[in-house]
Amino acid sequence: MRLRHKPWAKEYIANHPQYVISSPSKKDKSWKELFNSDNPLYVEVGTGKGKFLDNMSVKYPHINFVGIEKFESVLVTGVQRVLQTKPTNLKFINGDVNDLLEYFNSEEIDRLYINFTDPWPKKRHEKRRLTYKSFLSLYEQALHPHGEIHMKTDNQGLFEYSLESMSQYGMKLKNISLDLHNSDDEENVMTEYEEKFSEKGQRIFRLEACFRAK
Amino acid sequence: MRLRHKPWAKEYIANHPQYVISSPSKKDKSWKELFNSDNPLYVEVGTGKGKFLDNMSVKYPHINFVGIEKFESVLVTGVQRVLQTKPTNLKFINGDVNDLLEYFNSEEIDRLYINFTDPWPKKRHEKRRLTYKSFLSLYEQALHPHGEIHMKTDNQGLFEYSLESMSQYGMKLKNISLDLHNSDDEENVMTEYEEKFSEKGQRIFRLEACFRAK
Ligand SMILES: C[S@@+](CC[C@H](N)C(=O)[O-])C[C@H]1O[C@@H](n2cnc3c(N)ncnc32)[C@H](O)[C@@H]1O
Ligand SMILES: C[S@@+](CC[C@H](N)C(=O)[O-])C[C@H]1O[C@@H](n2cnc3c(N)ncnc32)[C@H](O)[C@@H]1O
Repeated sequence: MRLRHKPWAKEYIANHPQYVISSPSKKDKSWKELFNSDNPLYVEVGTGKGKFLDNMSVKYPHINFVGIEKFESVLVTGVQRVLQTKPTNLKFINGDVNDLLEYFNSEEIDRLYINFTDPWPKKRHEKRRLTYKSFLSLYEQALHPHGEIHMKTDNQGLFEYSLESMSQYGMKLKNISLDLHNSDDEENVMTEYEEKFSEKGQRIFRLEACFRAK
Repeated sequence: MRLRHKPWAKEYIANHPQYVISSPSKKDKSWKELFNSDNPLYVEVGTGKGKFLDNMSVKYPHINFVGIEKFESVLVTGVQRVLQTKPTNLKFINGDVNDLLEYFNSEEIDRLYINFTDPWPKKRHEKRRLTYKSFLSLYEQALHPHGEIHMKTDNQGLFEYSLESMSQYGMKLKNISLDLHNSDDEENVMTEYEEKFSEKGQRIFRLEACFRAK
């Protein structure tokens, strides 16, 4: 994501604690308490400007959504968005996916979305890819045993890597699409990057994965 | 593969027992004896007209290759081919992959190729796909514990299915390519179908899989 630095973003975010939680800790309230609801919890890592989750929160009012984004200058657009749409089932975390277990209790998440995450194509940056085994290990701890990971990307190299990494980790794959926009998935909700890349004619790849067979 | 019936094929094949073994049985000679060699054994299921294995047998003289093909009218072209090229490290089986364990002892195969196999796109034909779990179970028994399956296809649906089926079976995936002819695989040997489909501009998918992590 191209970053335009917005010096005011940090303060703007801090002024909207009902939508952005800046350093949640396991010791604080649970997400059920924060949402005041027992509904399932779906989390997007690297949520960017929050468009996907904003649309999802409207389409699925009985799911609670949390988006994690590390850059204030990006996330601030998501905050501006929800100040318009006023969802009660969507919150953001201004933080790093590496700290996932600070934000969530073990097995607390029901589904995790990884959408158009940075590909880090150089082999020496493998560890930064959000499907590297150390991240899968974080997801495994935070996800409910029957929870699922749903991933979409336009990046072929990242998708090939993720299939291998998840499989080598022992995960089970399902509902793979190697050309999402030419397959019959009527439920698909597009992310901002997805709109951008598919308009350019890029193929979109999708997978679902879980740590245990149901 | 479009089938032109060749009434003479059966007899032609029977007349070349040095190249085609028509009903090998576990009780007969081992493949090491048949090849008179201890070299690794690589098998292609649904070998068609044998072009891939004929090229492989030249490129890799220290590997023994066996191709299984059920239709005489197709396989006969492979026999005509090897009567020209005279490889000592390539034989065919005129038989059905369902009978794999009649042809091979357990753990006898070092690598198994599944190239451009029939896609059987209808859900009710799932069991006929050569990556359906019952076939994976045959492969698991016939393959050496560290043996690998190498698969190529132009068929997106079959490839998506195979990734899922292998993963759900517990196999580990590696060296996936979602566009083989635009990736840097200099070792690739094309099959007959691969030439045909890639000339038409079709994307070629490739994977490698094994039953145990090394
Ligand atoms: C390419 S954008 C995609 C945004 C959005 N998911 C979409 O599909 O439109 C990836 C986003 O992930 C964020 N990101 C990358 N690594 C992260 C990390 N370790 N923790 C939190 N956010 C991260 C980046 O800042 C960026 O905003
Ligand atoms: C589409 S062709 C591909 C041939 C070759 N592998 C290639 O890539 O050019 C598939 C071949 O598999 C054979 N085949 C399909 N199912 C089989 C089975 N159960 N046992 C043996 N051969 C089979 C078919 O007869 C056909 O010749």
